[in-house]
This record gives sequence, structure tokens and C-alpha cells, in this order.
Amino acid sequence: MNQTQCVIITIGEEIVSGLITDTNSAWMGKRLYGLGIEVLEKISVKDVEEDIIGAMKYAYARVPLVLMTGGLGPTKDDLTKKALMNFFECGQIFSQSTYKEICQLMEKFGKQPTEAHRNQAFMPEIAQLLKNGMGSAPGMLMEKNGKVLISMPGVPYEMKHIFERHVGKIIQERYEVYPIFHKILMTSGEGESRLAVKISDIEDDLPEGISIAYLPGMAQVRIRVSGRGLDAEETQNLVEQIANEIESKIKPFVFGYDNEPLEKAIGKMLVGKKLTLSTAESCTGGYLAHMITSVPGSSAYFNGSVIAYSNQVKMDILGVKEKTLISHGAVSKETVMEMAENVRKLLNTDYGLATSGIAGPDGGTDEKPVGTIWIACAGPGGIKTKKLELSKDRVLNIRYTSVTCMTLLRKFILESELC
Amino acid sequence: MNQTQCVIITIGEEIVSGLITDTNSAWMGKRLYGLGIEVLEKISVKDVEEDIIGAMKYAYARVPLVLMTGGLGPTKDDLTKKALMNFFECGQIFSQSTYKEICQLMEKFGKQPTEAHRNQAFMPEIAQLLKNGMGSAPGMLMEKNGKVLISMPGVPYEMKHIFERHVGKIIQERYEVYPIFHKILMTSGEGESRLAVKISDIEDDLPEGISIAYLPGMAQVRIRVSGRGLDAEETQNLVEQIANEIESKIKPFVFGYDNEPLEKAIGKMLVGKKLTLSTAESCTGGYLAHMITSVPGSSAYFNGSVIAYSNQVKMDILGVKEKTLISHGAVSKETVMEMAENVRKLLNTDYGLATSGIAGPDGGTDEKPVGTIWIACAGPGGIKTKKLELSKDRVLNIRYTSVTCMTLLRKFILESELC
Repeated sequence: MNQTQCVIITIGEEIVSGLITDTNSAWMGKRLYGLGIEVLEKISVKDVEEDIIGAMKYAYARVPLVLMTGGLGPTKDDLTKKALMNFFECGQIFSQSTYKEICQLMEKFGKQPTEAHRNQAFMPEIAQLLKNGMGSAPGMLMEKNGKVLISMPGVPYEMKHIFERHVGKIIQERYEVYPIFHKILMTSGEGESRLAVKISDIEDDLPEGISIAYLPGMAQVRIRVSGRGLDAEETQNLVEQIANEIESKIKPFVFGYDNEPLEKAIGKMLVGKKLTLSTAESCTGGYLAHMITSVPGSSAYFNGSVIAYSNQVKMDILGVKEKTLISHGAVSKETVMEMAENVRKLLNTDYGLATSGIAGPDGGTDEKPVGTIWIACAGPGGIKTKKLELSKDRVLNIRYTSVTCMTLLRKFILESELC
Repeated sequence: MNQTQCVIITIGEEIVSGLITDTNSAWMGKRLYGLGIEVLEKISVKDVEEDIIGAMKYAYARVPLVLMTGGLGPTKDDLTKKALMNFFECGQIFSQSTYKEICQLMEKFGKQPTEAHRNQAFMPEIAQLLKNGMGSAPGMLMEKNGKVLISMPGVPYEMKHIFERHVGKIIQERYEVYPIFHKILMTSGEGESRLAVKISDIEDDLPEGISIAYLPGMAQVRIRVSGRGLDAEETQNLVEQIANEIESKIKPFVFGYDNEPLEKAIGKMLVGKKLTLSTAESCTGGYLAHMITSVPGSSAYFNGSVIAYSNQVKMDILGVKEKTLISHGAVSKETVMEMAENVRKLLNTDYGLATSGIAGPDGGTDEKPVGTIWIACAGPGGIKTKKLELSKDRVLNIRYTSVTCMTLLRKFILESELC
């Protein structure tokens, strides 16, 4: 089995110095994986001509296919094209078609092209241009010694557009692709080590070509079963079989498959059972509603939310009793219970989720330190609450709480069913 | 000037194949940059012993300092320790102190350590252990030929904890650090090319050692001025001076400095002017409120939000007139105007922001295609609205709209001041 291998190079001072996180290479890796191309390595280098050339040489020596992003913008710190012309030993030509597209793009925004835009239309003469429908810099395919290099802009949606429109097709035409199959079990409610113990007998006795990886995330663990083999059907069946065996051992924790987010699994569950949901958020400040509404079609089961950041709003809109706030405080079991039950009635939904806590980094007391968070889920079968004792990291606390709310809702609905 | 150089290696099949995005290397890059260490390259390799050793050899040949993350978990796919022992030619010992910490951590969660946890306490014998206060795998510092390799877990908050507690200190003790100074101007409301034109005379005539980079983001462009030089004070002054010159040419677009997020700049502005804010969100589904409340202390100026995902909630809670929804539709100038003005009154704040649109990917019509979004900002000086025509990408639309709302608010407050 000779799988085609590829190296990804991402270019940009801002990536290497950490000013921005490189999301392009992960996205491309995923797509290439699906096409059966093995990404051997990823390299990030600065906007320095010699470094770019050095990375190209290193990659070209190892693999037949190199994908590169970044350094094609109109400003003066973008040196990729120079490096490409140097590496491929060619000159440049003015691309009338590229300039035309740039001018059209500018016109759409009601603006005139600048000198920098004109410079952008100069291209390495041996480059095959890959049209960029979303921005001014096209992708470029260049060849040398039977090996292929594809350069794309660094702006994620432009890169994705060029990849989807051209690169996938080019790869399928040029290479024999050996598909890899994988199935991911999405779990929440149990940690990596404990899951590993539960499935250790399967893991100790895996068939050839099958591997398991644990991918821990925010209050979740993904378990990925991968298989590679010459016989596609056999491999795919084996992956399915092992995944099923694993699932049967950890059933209550598995909420979905293949990177399906928890919010999407929750959405499907609500649609399937014809249930509706609303939220009343204090410390999560809208993040829980955002997660739920990030799913297309969520308006079918999500009516809305009241974000009650001040106590006044908790009382005036959500109807939390002043007495409750005074005797127990805003961060209390009693308050979140009223919030969950009242938002459910106010927005006329089957279930209501509520959060109230000290997200941090400041605002804690001895009795209720930063990270103390109460959550509640109210439904036709009553109210469930949970106290979380989290970190001092505000963002982490907000996200962890939102995910845990959804896990609480899922558990509550599943248990109600068993009654 | 001999700046200490470093290579970052991140390990994990899941990173190379794109199943997860590597955020660790960006975070470390930023910290190292601040310490005056130059990150020369970043390499991501799979959980394959030979690949890890290959990357270590490559990095060790180039730089005196290598930082590595990943592959230290308790499950069977984690091979970093094996690779380290092979590369550094040493055996392993059982670390009683590590095992004790693991047991304490387990106890805290009310759980018993497993055999996998016990295996985790075996360490390369020459490793100096760097305590991990957040998880079970400590960091490790290992030396060979006067060069240093530091290995840390891949879980981001564990890595960050070890870095903050140990690595920064180790670097400052061991290396002569040549600080790099930089100042970033945060802008919104104008694109990269146009900003470049406005400051081209400055950019054409930069003093030695000073460079400018454009870092485009979501409806924002960061302009970074960097300086390196032997005389720290002189370099810092020069960076400040160039940044000031640039700012004076693009003043209305600059909302902050040095990666200050727009939501934080907005927060400072509101606190400074003693103004309060609320939001009424339809298509952004809570993301705008989340951005605002991601800022610590935002409860001082943000009262809350009504997420009106259904028309019923728009009418019942926000008091949008049924007539308006029937004659103009939920996605209309008239509806967002009522939403913004009513939420402002309902939650008793100076300003109210509202959004309503078709976030996608489905739900568009000929007249109002996917990506059609109306936003409004109501305040003591009246109401401003804006129509956006965005993409079919739901997540992109939600984020772009939220950022644009804050830009609209900032502009409105600045203009009110001039009156």
C-alpha cells in the first residue's frame, strides 16, 4: 500500500510568532485525510524568502505533493511569489485575467483598485492559476520533476474556496488514492483513563491495520477508530465492527459520531422527541444560547433566551424572587431553579436551562470562590441541578459550563424516557 | 545581535490529520516572542516514534532550545516518552512523587488510579520533572550537548500551567534574551489594501530594524510595528514613534492597541462614559452578548440580553408590533429598530443593539437571500441601522455581524460626542 504523502507549509510571521492560530492546516489535513492523502508533516515558517525556500526544498525532498498557504496578499510583507519564482527558476508575467477579476471584486465593493492590487496580478510564468472566487489572489499550481506544489492565500475562506473548487479535483485526477476509514465515537461524562479501562480488552487485541486514538476535549472525549488496508470494503467493515464493540461497552457516554458536536446531537434529540428549549443565562452570558443556535435549523426547537446579567433583570424579566436573591444569593441552587423553571414558562418551552456563577477571574468570596457555578435543567419531569467547581479562567468556565448544561439536559431527557 | 532561536514540535495524529487545531504552538510562540526568543519553525508530527525522533534530530541540529507538546497521556497511543528515551539514550525510573500527585488528583475527583495512571509515573531517568498542577503528566526538561528540550502535555491548560510556572523562568535563567518590541494598532472599518495606501509613505521609508505587518481578521485589520535592535530603549522609542505616525494617518479606524479585542475597547469606552448596554438578538443567537460578557467586569455596563429566536418572543418579551412583523418581516430595518429601542427601554440601558437576519445556510428567498442581515443601534441620540449582505456560512455570518454591531456602537458613541 503506497499512500500518497503530502507536506503542508503555512507561511506568516504572525503564525510562527503565535499572533494568530493556524487553522488552515488543520482544515486541509482533514480534507486530505478524507481523500486518502497522508499528511506527513506540517511546517510553519516566517515571511522570509530564504525560510520559505528552505521549507519548500525540505518538503520537496520528502513528498510528491506540497500544499502551501499564506503570503499572497497585496502588502509589502508578502514574499511567497518571489520565493516560488526563485525555487522554480522562472520569471513573472502580468495576468490580465487576474487583474480583471480584482477590478470586478473592487467594483462590487464600490472601490477603485490600487497600485498594490495591480502588483498582485503579476504571476510566476509557469503557474497554473486556480481561480479565487472570494478574494483577489488566485491559487497557483507549479510543477518540477514530476512533483506538485500548490500555493493558496492564507485567508481561511479564500483558501477553502480554492481547495473545494480545484485542489480536491486535482488530487483525485493525479494520484492513486488509498482511502483511510475512520469512525469517531463522541463521548461526554467520563474521562480518558476510565474509558480506556472499560475498553482495554478490545484495545489489547486489535486486528492488523486498525488503531484507536483518544482525543480529549472540553468536558468530552472523542475515541477514533481508524483502519487502513488494501481492501476498502473489508477495512470499512472492520472499522465499523470495532467501533460497535467499543460503543457497546460505554453506551451511556456516547452522544454521537464523527465529530458531531454535542449541540447538534441535542438538537436532533429535541427534534426527534418534538421538544422545545429555552435558556436563562447569567455567568455564561449567551454562550450556551450561541452553541445551541450555531446549529442550522435550531429555530425549530429553540425559542430564545434571557441573559440576566444584572439582578434587576433576573427579577424584572425572569421573575426570580427578591427574597431568594437576598437569602441565597444570585449564585445558588435556589436562584438557578427559579431561573430555569421561569424561563421555561415565560418562553413557553418544554425544557429550560439556567446558569449562574462566578466566571472570574475576580469576584469570588471564601464561601463562593471564583469558579463556583450552579446550573439547572427544568422540564416536565421536575428540576435537576448541579454545582460546578471550576477554574479561575473565565473563558474556560463559560465553555465548560455550557457543555455541562447540555450534558445535563441530555441525561435528564434520557432518564425521563426510562420512567 | 544573537537572538536565541527555538523550534516548537507538536505531536499528535489528531493535529497532523486536522482533527483538532493546534492552538498550543500559537500560544507558546506568543509567550516566547515576548521573552525575546525567536521561534524559527514549527513542526507537527504524528504519534509515531520514528517521526518524533526525526523531528527532534532536525530541530536539535538547528537550535539550542526545543519545546515539545503532546503524547504524554495515559493511553496507548502516546509514545513521546519512548522517543525521548531513545533520543537521549537513557532508561526509565519510577517517579514516586509523580505517582503520589496522580493519586492525589484522582482522590480529588473521588476516583481510584488505574494501571494506566501507574504507568504514567515511569519517567526518563535523566529528566528534570516540571510539576503539572492541573493534570497527571508532569513536564520534562532534558539536556544533551548543552542543548535543551522541554516536553509538556498536549492538553492546553496543562501546558500553559507548566509554561507559566516553570518554562518562562528556565528560559530567562539560561539564555541571554534580546527583547523584540512591537506595537499593534487594532483597526476596524477599513480594508488592508486601503490602509496600506494611507500609510505607504511611512512604509516606504522605514528606519533600519523596523518592520510593519498587516494581520487581517474578522472585519478587522491589525497593523503590527516591530523593532529589533541592540539598544532596547532606542528601539522601543522608534517603534512607538512609527506607530504614532501611522495612527495619526488612520485615526478613526484605530480602536485599540496590542491585540486588545474590540469588545474590551467597547467596554472601556462604556465604563469611561458611564454608559450601559443591552442587546436583542435574533440571528446572532447570543454570540454578541457572549463577546461582550467575555470581558471580565462587563457586568458593570452590560445588563443583559433578550435572545428572540422566535417571532413570539420578539412580540411577547421585546414588544415588537405584530403589524411590523407582518408588513416588513422579521428581517427588516423596521423590526431591528423596534428591537433595539425596546430592549434599551426594557433593560433600562443607554444603548441597545439588535440583530435580525438569515444566518444560513438555508432559509433565504429571492428578495432576502441567505446572508441578509439587519442591525440597529438605539441610544439617547436616536437609532442607526445598517444592512449587511454576507455569505452562506452560518458561523462566519454570526461572528461578522456581532463584530459589526460593536463597530456601529463605537461609531455612534463617537459621533454623538462630536455633536
